[in-house]
Amino acid sequence: MPAPSTLANAIRMLAIDAIVRATEGHQGVPLGMAEIATALYTRHLRFDPADPTWPDRDRVVLSNGHGSMLLYALLYLTGYAAIDLAQIRSFRELGSRCEGHPEIAPQHGIEVTTGPLGQGIANALGMAVAEAFLNARFGDGLVRHTTYAFVGDGCLQEGVGQEMISLAGHLRLSRLILLWDDNRITDDGSTELSISEDVAERFRVAGWHVIELDGHDIDAVDAALREARQDPRPSLLACRTVIAKGIARLQGQRGGHSARLYPEDAAAARDLLGWPHAPFEMPEAVLEAWRAAGRRGAPERAAWKTRRDALAPDVRADFERELAGEPGPGWRETLLAYKRAALGRSDVPAGILISAEINAALAAALPQRMVGCADLEAPTGHKRGLRAFDARDRSGAYVHCGVREHLMGAMANGMAAHGGVMPLAVTYLAFADYERPAMRMAALMRLPVKFVFSHDSIGVGKNGPTHQPVEILASLRAMPNMLVMRPADAVEAAECWEIALEHREGPVSMVFARQALPCVRDEASQDNRSRRGAYVLAEAQGGHREVTLLATGSEVAVALHARASLQASGVPTAVISMPCCERFDAQDAGYRAAVLGPSDGVRVAVEAAVRFGWERYLGVCGGFVGMRGFGASGPADALYMHFDITPQAVAAEARRLLAERA
Amino acid sequence: MPAPSTLANAIRMLAIDAIVRATEGHQGVPLGMAEIATALYTRHLRFDPADPTWPDRDRVVLSNGHGSMLLYALLYLTGYAAIDLAQIRSFRELGSRCEGHPEIAPQHGIEVTTGPLGQGIANALGMAVAEAFLNARFGDGLVRHTTYAFVGDGCLQEGVGQEMISLAGHLRLSRLILLWDDNRITDDGSTELSISEDVAERFRVAGWHVIELDGHDIDAVDAALREARQDPRPSLLACRTVIAKGIARLQGQRGGHSARLYPEDAAAARDLLGWPHAPFEMPEAVLEAWRAAGRRGAPERAAWKTRRDALAPDVRADFERELAGEPGPGWRETLLAYKRAALGRSDVPAGILISAEINAALAAALPQRMVGCADLEAPTGHKRGLRAFDARDRSGAYVHCGVREHLMGAMANGMAAHGGVMPLAVTYLAFADYERPAMRMAALMRLPVKFVFSHDSIGVGKNGPTHQPVEILASLRAMPNMLVMRPADAVEAAECWEIALEHREGPVSMVFARQALPCVRDEASQDNRSRRGAYVLAEAQGGHREVTLLATGSEVAVALHARASLQASGVPTAVISMPCCERFDAQDAGYRAAVLGPSDGVRVAVEAAVRFGWERYLGVCGGFVGMRGFGASGPADALYMHFDITPQAVAAEARRLLAERA
Repeated sequence: MPAPSTLANAIRMLAIDAIVRATEGHQGVPLGMAEIATALYTRHLRFDPADPTWPDRDRVVLSNGHGSMLLYALLYLTGYAAIDLAQIRSFRELGSRCEGHPEIAPQHGIEVTTGPLGQGIANALGMAVAEAFLNARFGDGLVRHTTYAFVGDGCLQEGVGQEMISLAGHLRLSRLILLWDDNRITDDGSTELSISEDVAERFRVAGWHVIELDGHDIDAVDAALREARQDPRPSLLACRTVIAKGIARLQGQRGGHSARLYPEDAAAARDLLGWPHAPFEMPEAVLEAWRAAGRRGAPERAAWKTRRDALAPDVRADFERELAGEPGPGWRETLLAYKRAALGRSDVPAGILISAEINAALAAALPQRMVGCADLEAPTGHKRGLRAFDARDRSGAYVHCGVREHLMGAMANGMAAHGGVMPLAVTYLAFADYERPAMRMAALMRLPVKFVFSHDSIGVGKNGPTHQPVEILASLRAMPNMLVMRPADAVEAAECWEIALEHREGPVSMVFARQALPCVRDEASQDNRSRRGAYVLAEAQGGHREVTLLATGSEVAVALHARASLQASGVPTAVISMPCCERFDAQDAGYRAAVLGPSDGVRVAVEAAVRFGWERYLGVCGGFVGMRGFGASGPADALYMHFDITPQAVAAEARRLLAERA
Repeated sequence: MPAPSTLANAIRMLAIDAIVRATEGHQGVPLGMAEIATALYTRHLRFDPADPTWPDRDRVVLSNGHGSMLLYALLYLTGYAAIDLAQIRSFRELGSRCEGHPEIAPQHGIEVTTGPLGQGIANALGMAVAEAFLNARFGDGLVRHTTYAFVGDGCLQEGVGQEMISLAGHLRLSRLILLWDDNRITDDGSTELSISEDVAERFRVAGWHVIELDGHDIDAVDAALREARQDPRPSLLACRTVIAKGIARLQGQRGGHSARLYPEDAAAARDLLGWPHAPFEMPEAVLEAWRAAGRRGAPERAAWKTRRDALAPDVRADFERELAGEPGPGWRETLLAYKRAALGRSDVPAGILISAEINAALAAALPQRMVGCADLEAPTGHKRGLRAFDARDRSGAYVHCGVREHLMGAMANGMAAHGGVMPLAVTYLAFADYERPAMRMAALMRLPVKFVFSHDSIGVGKNGPTHQPVEILASLRAMPNMLVMRPADAVEAAECWEIALEHREGPVSMVFARQALPCVRDEASQDNRSRRGAYVLAEAQGGHREVTLLATGSEVAVALHARASLQASGVPTAVISMPCCERFDAQDAGYRAAVLGPSDGVRVAVEAAVRFGWERYLGVCGGFVGMRGFGASGPADALYMHFDITPQAVAAEARRLLAERA
């Protein structure tokens, strides 16, 4: 039986060999955290490489994702079939599963994509929240596991990391354990260049259970993990480590982080570590000891499956449907009823409160929905019918995230990656920039997170330009894999929510006005007209269409008024409502051409935002009525007039273009 | 002489009257911090409303910007002429200087735009850094002032706020004082909903000097300010306050934050506070006491002017030139020499290291330059010739910001708003999203911050898609007031730096490749060809131009190769290099048409990024060669092949479009 230190050295040598071969990589983490990882994977982690996606497995996040070879080495050694030696050898090559940073692939043991620092531990917090919520719903027999995250100094300097420390301590998530690689080195050199505080103490202030220990002492890590798993608070294992331990030339040095490794370094490490084996060669006894560690979880998994199979059929059906991300029965009927009722309503609700109403109506069909909100409960309204998820009540589905938008988004990603819950993250659109790094990761991972935004334009009014998005719609539409929806009224809002709940292949951004949205639709049926992204809301009358007006959200009403004026003067004009550009772009050319109208006709778009991106519908000579820069402080109506986003301006622009071409 | 508490109540009543009149506003801050502000402005703040932009004034940041009426009341009361009672009465109306949130106007006493939480205190940190740097350069006689920031719970929950706490403590900026409105209420209600930690203790851990006190006791605030001004550390005054104090119905309650106020509330407050005066009426004695406080600083300002006037002429010239944001003599010649030398170079440097070389060459001409970098010193190279700015050495011009991009950007904004320094903020383009909230504020404020980015595309290579920008160029180009420059080689890089140094009306984003950029230009003269944003790099030969290829940055070389292939097969093809879309868009129609070529010709753009936004040059039927989604992990060359961003692909696209139209 190889010594535990030999198991750790197996990680080291795999990492060194792969990084030498790739000519680049980050040896600091795998070499510095080899003992920590060995203690976790051989003695504590609840996992089964034969069934990587077992729902009740412990979750592991490599928040310091640049140290990806640590994870790949562990996956290979413990027996994940998809990560074999050929994959390890192709580390960082195009097509390898061993990518530069871990890219989400739970079927291979990679829970989440990490790399941009700080977000990984925020993902881990989201996973721990999801676990606690599901534990409260389904009980210990079905859901009770721990979330571990490897974390470096960089993650803890990032604001999102600090937000995570604060909220995790507040929520007292006991089954959340961070393994901190306290090596006192970042890319620039000593951490003393940029931080002086006692990081462990900072965690204690936030209510964490902290254990300081030698990260190269496997038994100490083992004991600390045992202690941490018993503590009612989240735990930080502050593991004092030597960066790049095993490479004498670099260990404990700045270059340990990611200086290039050469074959001579690998040879020197073999000498230093007493590892006589050839590159990528793993002695059978060592591999077998690791594989045995990988088999530890099989009986637990089998017992779990027995318990699951013994569930009452309806409970099991709920559990599995929710794991699959599906809404419960009746949700489409609920949305249809909402649409129909919207047509006859005398009150006209604010855009964001339409979304709140729809969510409240869907509550019974969406027991897996968890709503996070960044301290804007009252103005966004998405808490209706929900209790707070807090340190005492894990069955609450509403997380008061505090004024921490980036954390909120990254937590939502973690919840979605965990599975079994459907996360919404709610804030104002002006603050989407704070959340954007997490939105990008949701898009990259294709996680079904619902990002919900209110206060979507100068319609915000008197709070002024800081709170008025003008460029943010464009910046979200530029993001691959992100569906951006901006409904025009309650009917479209229900249709967009239907699309959002159908869409499992990536995130959506649901963008709502602060101001009231009167109905622009005069019919609502099972047919979801928003599903193709854009549609003819009002066709030209009295002849061949001469003008096509394109609009989204609150400006669809502006376009309809402009159309009335143009029609009154004999110009056949159509209004296209375009709640989702991405969906429209995905339609066939025939549909797109039919909606956009004749290419020799006049097209004018109206949106209370910048023009950037609209040219793909307008061509070089189309017209646009919207914002030319940032907003201003004043009442919403006055701002629409001031910035000339009015039916008159739209009609005038159309007439100008008609005259140009006559 | 009115009692100090009466002076504080003058703030309260002005705020209440203005908020009632505006029908919205945030009374929590002005009512809760009235005594704190009174102590600061009547006994400590070094300012002179008769000369609002006196360079050596203390700086005040209202980080909790929603409480804007606190600031407007102070400006009116102390005698800033531009903020008269008419302005106060028009609070939140379109055109008022009393906007919903403070919008930068130093000439009116508003140092910086605030509103998105957390950034204000990060701006304050930047101001304190600038002050310490200038103090070290010019001495106590010319620069020695204090930066104060009002701050609420929200700012301290935000990640950027936490980053600020950590770095400010590390840098031991003694002349930085935060006034914390510890009212234990946020928009959602009790802070207990989302935070449990002892915030004061969190500051102590980070090395701050902390005083806990009653925020409604003016003498206590006064004493604490006196103590804080003596301490060698940054100071937090943790002021226990009652939110909305003075409105019995709301004080200490959730609604105190921003629930609507009615005339009855104002009447009740008049009773409670013993304030018999009519709305917006300020008794003469109270106003005179405030105005006297506003005159306190005049002798100090006069003494400062005397010292400045006594400076040696060359020192004074340097000081004033740097305050004006102008580079020193010889900078254009330095850039020209760099351009010329670039043509004959045998080595081909990486894109970002070209920028590093240019900055090093400009060092003598830019003594006011301060470079912040988020833990990427080695790969970005912008420390050459600079020492670190740290707790011991304030003359260093390089700030190791740690892995804190958002803070870095917001600090740079604070430095630029302070004046006298020229801030650069350096990181990878993939991390621009972390910094983006600060970039938006720089754009909104039109601050001349230089945001410098490296690793600008899939050229990043093996680190994979998390580190490869694809949508980020588009998202920056969508931002009003932001110049985005992506030079193709060393000549264009020098030209773009010339533009950046000329540009004082807003921020620039300088975007550089990680990979080597061989020269695409074969001439360099005083004529800055990049200045018009785009230009004909290589004109079509052998006849009327049939194809126009548009490219930026590293893809200009790809376009040139494609042109060679097209020309070889007899297709007259031009290459347009477009280092700055915004500048090109600002040219007259004739120039733009001449560059873009005949509207019936074929246009193809090539950029290793998404197409979004390119249609404004391509029209609906132009061609684009670039990214369709996120990148991948692999060597850069392999990725360019994999994603088909090659001369062959560009030429093929041009031929396809030519054939279509034939």
